[in-house]
Amino acid sequence: MKKVQKDNLYIVPLGGLGEVGRNMNLFIYKGKILIVDMGLRMPEENMPGIDYIIPNTSIFKPNLENTKVSQFSCLNPKNIVGVILTHGHYDHIGAIPYTIPRLQNPIIFASNLTKGIVLNRQIEFSRQPKLIIEEVKNGSKISLGPFNIEFFRQNHNIPGNLGLFIETPVGNILYTSDFKFDPAPINDLPTDFSKFESFAKRKILLLISDSTGAENKGRSLSEKTISENLEEIFKQAPGRIIAATFASHLNRIQQIISLSEKYQRKVVIEGLSMKKNVEIARNLNYLKIKKGTIIKAEDISKFPDEKITFCCTGAQGEKSAALMRIASGEHRFLNIKKGDAIIFSSSVIPGNERTVQIIKDEFYRQGVKVYHYQMMDIHASGHAYSDELKKLIQILKPKFLLPIHGQYSMLVRHKELAEEEKMAPSNIIIAENGQVLSLNPQSFVIEKERVASNYVMVDGLGVGDVGEVVLRDRQNLAQDGMFVIVAVIDRITGKVKTSPDIISRGFVYLRESKQLLKETRQQVIKIVEDAIGAGGAVNWSYVKDELRDKIGQFLFYKTKRRPMILPVVIEV
Amino acid sequence: MKKVQKDNLYIVPLGGLGEVGRNMNLFIYKGKILIVDMGLRMPEENMPGIDYIIPNTSIFKPNLENTKVSQFSCLNPKNIVGVILTHGHYDHIGAIPYTIPRLQNPIIFASNLTKGIVLNRQIEFSRQPKLIIEEVKNGSKISLGPFNIEFFRQNHNIPGNLGLFIETPVGNILYTSDFKFDPAPINDLPTDFSKFESFAKRKILLLISDSTGAENKGRSLSEKTISENLEEIFKQAPGRIIAATFASHLNRIQQIISLSEKYQRKVVIEGLSMKKNVEIARNLNYLKIKKGTIIKAEDISKFPDEKITFCCTGAQGEKSAALMRIASGEHRFLNIKKGDAIIFSSSVIPGNERTVQIIKDEFYRQGVKVYHYQMMDIHASGHAYSDELKKLIQILKPKFLLPIHGQYSMLVRHKELAEEEKMAPSNIIIAENGQVLSLNPQSFVIEKERVASNYVMVDGLGVGDVGEVVLRDRQNLAQDGMFVIVAVIDRITGKVKTSPDIISRGFVYLRESKQLLKETRQQVIKIVEDAIGAGGAVNWSYVKDELRDKIGQFLFYKTKRRPMILPVVIEV
Repeated sequence: MKKVQKDNLYIVPLGGLGEVGRNMNLFIYKGKILIVDMGLRMPEENMPGIDYIIPNTSIFKPNLENTKVSQFSCLNPKNIVGVILTHGHYDHIGAIPYTIPRLQNPIIFASNLTKGIVLNRQIEFSRQPKLIIEEVKNGSKISLGPFNIEFFRQNHNIPGNLGLFIETPVGNILYTSDFKFDPAPINDLPTDFSKFESFAKRKILLLISDSTGAENKGRSLSEKTISENLEEIFKQAPGRIIAATFASHLNRIQQIISLSEKYQRKVVIEGLSMKKNVEIARNLNYLKIKKGTIIKAEDISKFPDEKITFCCTGAQGEKSAALMRIASGEHRFLNIKKGDAIIFSSSVIPGNERTVQIIKDEFYRQGVKVYHYQMMDIHASGHAYSDELKKLIQILKPKFLLPIHGQYSMLVRHKELAEEEKMAPSNIIIAENGQVLSLNPQSFVIEKERVASNYVMVDGLGVGDVGEVVLRDRQNLAQDGMFVIVAVIDRITGKVKTSPDIISRGFVYLRESKQLLKETRQQVIKIVEDAIGAGGAVNWSYVKDELRDKIGQFLFYKTKRRPMILPVVIEV
Repeated sequence: MKKVQKDNLYIVPLGGLGEVGRNMNLFIYKGKILIVDMGLRMPEENMPGIDYIIPNTSIFKPNLENTKVSQFSCLNPKNIVGVILTHGHYDHIGAIPYTIPRLQNPIIFASNLTKGIVLNRQIEFSRQPKLIIEEVKNGSKISLGPFNIEFFRQNHNIPGNLGLFIETPVGNILYTSDFKFDPAPINDLPTDFSKFESFAKRKILLLISDSTGAENKGRSLSEKTISENLEEIFKQAPGRIIAATFASHLNRIQQIISLSEKYQRKVVIEGLSMKKNVEIARNLNYLKIKKGTIIKAEDISKFPDEKITFCCTGAQGEKSAALMRIASGEHRFLNIKKGDAIIFSSSVIPGNERTVQIIKDEFYRQGVKVYHYQMMDIHASGHAYSDELKKLIQILKPKFLLPIHGQYSMLVRHKELAEEEKMAPSNIIIAENGQVLSLNPQSFVIEKERVASNYVMVDGLGVGDVGEVVLRDRQNLAQDGMFVIVAVIDRITGKVKTSPDIISRGFVYLRESKQLLKETRQQVIKIVEDAIGAGGAVNWSYVKDELRDKIGQFLFYKTKRRPMILPVVIEV
């Protein structure tokens, strides 16, 4: 591995490039490390049982004694000057409990809302050392080693979202975090373009910018439009309104609450995470709620239907969320009836289309009115669309661009947009997680070395212990189930004692497969006795291999299925 | 069960209502049964290992001796007067090999292309009796028992697609099949509106109409628009063109071939099913291909890159399809290089969004140009959009409407569209699979009785043998794997002999979990010996239950995972 050249700034994306989620970036200058965000993402379909995927931080060696770390393969957590969290969404903060202990609990900087959300999450991880979080806000300036950071507010769909202007010895970096331009936001001030202009005057060497919305044409919708459309529903709804959105989408929750107040509706907040977020945000004055607006679910019967709004989680069709319980008639206090209006006020995360369709259909079957974003604009993305991304580049005129946050196709599109704004293609880097980018006033290039960036999977208490082998086994087990054969062999005669035990799950319905099991047992006895042979030492692993192969073939011939065959041979 | 009233016509949808796929409808008059279509659909995400879902035909009792069948719970296959297949897509014909033997091989009516596709599929089911298929075409008229059927051509995205005008003793039914209006189709004539007008003059009692596109506003795109946009790509592409679409989308394949001929490109057809479909359609003159246009994949190196088109399967990101092999560099003759253009000329089927994104990103990483339908109109739906559905109702002026083919939300939308056309809400039925609808000149209602319509799953050679139990086991196995414990007990001492065997897959990585396994073995010995107790008869099922519960708890405490615990206790 090559040494870090002291005159370059190194940027190492550990997550969020070529994917949506688990955002985490390192900035390294003369061995000093600044970390921005520490997010998680959801597993892919082919990762059954996995809870989350988090950034790979094996590059950090906590037990390293040598404090002068100079190689990328090996960073000392002692050299971390700070961790900055841009906002309180889990794709930016969710990996903290799994990662921060390994980094030896460095100081964190975040807005008060982000801090509140992070600390609330930590309650589940009570054995961990207390986090050290310092509050920052719009206009805050901090110095962390070679980095001088100024925070500025950015519109998104959660309050307390901060962009970063980072002065470094090689030049200035503007880091957008997730953002959109909104001339009429909810609970927030409009985008401050003069701020961007003042940053531009100080010269931006590198712009690091959100690509999530790059493939969308035009401009993202303003929250004002959303409010107006939601109000149409509130005006017409003859009965209860059940509005589902993301638990973290505090601005949308505010809209629903404000409209309810305007139309004299009481509001029930349903869903543990949404309740908690509302509580935190309300305590910090990020949510404006009149006294008496919020009621408990058990009190809805005290009010007429047209005076009730349910604001709940589950717009993605999540199995355990409030909306699913309502749809399936399992909610304790809310039974769907005609006259109810259901609002899906969120986009559908790719991969969730089927589940959302199923829950929507369930509501349609119950004869209620369903509103979703494909019918009318009742959800706005929190991410800048192509025209906004171009406008940012127009204002800032950065020398270099690093598109972050997005699938590879989004990063490519972001690059194309920058080229339309006359940036030189060679000044824009489409990077991948784990690549090392070096920046100086003259150049911005990808280094040859890479650091580990493969998935770290969280499953229950295990962080990173589920790998390819375990996942492949889970996939195989799911396909055709498993088939355990237990054969007890008489040590003296070399014969199978009694009928072999067969334990099978997920393969065939055993009660209706008695003939198949009978034939399989006969095969087992024959295969085992043939494999044992007459006299001499028995090769037990050969016996097992024979069982696995031949019973596998036999079952495939009979069923065209390939259960996982697990032979157990016991000599007594 | 109520008797069939002889003056009503009964319609029993067995699939395709509240879902997309496995279309099948029964028409019953005085015990005589007409079947339209016999399709399959793909399994949901929570059905691992399942190949297809097919309509439930348990209502048919093949061994029934009594030919006078008068109850819906029990139909005699002998009373089937015929099976009509509207077109050659698998959601209309795919269940034939699994269903037709049970129906005692009734006569089938289909266009020559549909027939060709069905017979080709039957090759895989060589032990079945030969299908009896009679060819019909636009203008054909047949009489089947009480039903007089006239076939008329409908635009879709496969040729040989036929709608049905059915004269019945209670009135005329128009059955659209999948359709769209296309003023400028490919390989086909424009929609014949005068035909619809002449049907309208004969009075339509009931319209049964495709709802797949009902939620889309406006009109579906014409294939002419698609051709023009595809041509733009052909004009610009500096190297090879790799165009992926559905294997059954013969009209799109024709467009790609025609454009290739226009731009002097040779065409490779890749993907077994696409090759076969092209061969069948070409033999029936549904595809117009010049001599010498089609070349073999192994011959591409004989031509310059700009003279090559690859037309292949895999636009849904299917693992085993040609496009995936190309993306992953595993194709024998085609290695992606700069200058190649990839065209995804198909929509993304809900549920496939993630896989399609992954394969697109793979191509972007390799630096090639990717075109997909979100960027430009290079795919048109084969289904009528809301304006077309309304226009059909305007022309036909049916008394009653039964929306079919679609998710429940689509059926609801179709009903709303009909109401906008002034149809009485009470004259439109949103039905579910398995309901029995009765029709006479005065009324169209849902009967109280229902027939079985739950999923029949195909897995390998098994049809309907995988049910809830097996599926739930597969889901559980996928989540946290399995854990088999084999304890050999000495019959005389009641003690565990030697160390218990543990076989686990999909739970933890065993090599790195030696300590956990050691502790588990100790627990096993203790639990077994406690459960056996001292003296008296041993309750082996109690011993096993104890092992299952306590080892389950122990492993959950250690890992927060719940593998399936399978105890085996052997007494020797």
